[in-house]
Amino acid sequence: MDLDFEKMGGLVPAIIQDCASGRVLMAGFMNQEAFRKTVETGFATFFSRSRNKLWTKGESSGHRLVVKEISTDCDQDAVLVRVEALGPGVCHNGYHSCFYRSLKDGLWVEAEERAFDPAAVYGGKS
Amino acid sequence: MDLDFEKMGGLVPAIIQDCASGRVLMAGFMNQEAFRKTVETGFATFFSRSRNKLWTKGESSGHRLVVKEISTDCDQDAVLVRVEALGPGVCHNGYHSCFYRSLKDGLWVEAEERAFDPAAVYGGKS
Repeated sequence: MDLDFEKMGGLVPAIIQDCASGRVLMAGFMNQEAFRKTVETGFATFFSRSRNKLWTKGESSGHRLVVKEISTDCDQDAVLVRVEALGPGVCHNGYHSCFYRSLKDGLWVEAEERAFDPAAVYGGKS
Repeated sequence: MDLDFEKMGGLVPAIIQDCASGRVLMAGFMNQEAFRKTVETGFATFFSRSRNKLWTKGESSGHRLVVKEISTDCDQDAVLVRVEALGPGVCHNGYHSCFYRSLKDGLWVEAEERAFDPAAVYGGKS
């Protein structure tokens, strides 16, 4: 289960992909503890760089990410977590995927509609 | 086209997804110049942390990644690049995807077969 956490000061990028639709839902970072917790609990858990602590996706919203498969890349310095995403969307802005904006003629434009009202779910907090 | 490069010392994680199969093929990092070059040339270009320079995927192997769509996430600190992948695979170890190992009972095990002979393509260099 070894991963190379040293390259990025204790973290590896963690890519979350919906196992049903194949959509990439979000990207975060895991430290060794977040990775172990993800494996042990079966719910995707990250290390928040801004809050400097572990964070299980869905703690506030209930929109948890149920782990179905975990893969690593050739250098063992990134993980891909295929999940079943509970709830209408993973993004705290109310979208199904955090990657809801695409580049069109040099501008980021919304490529999908909101899936839920973030204020109702997060109570105005991001 | 602004991205938040500051959070990670000038870099953003870049996730490469096959636009036909939906498979996540690799993960790398882009600095501002790599991102601009990716947009301008239409070929995915990264910043190599180990070699400290720009690197267009496929330079040695010919296995270039033709950009079809670029998305960013809610925090604008990661990019998702959907591509047409030229050649049999993107991984320098000879696999279709760099994420060719999955976690089974605490061990990373190969979840797919080699797609090409890496020594024939890379001449023994990684």
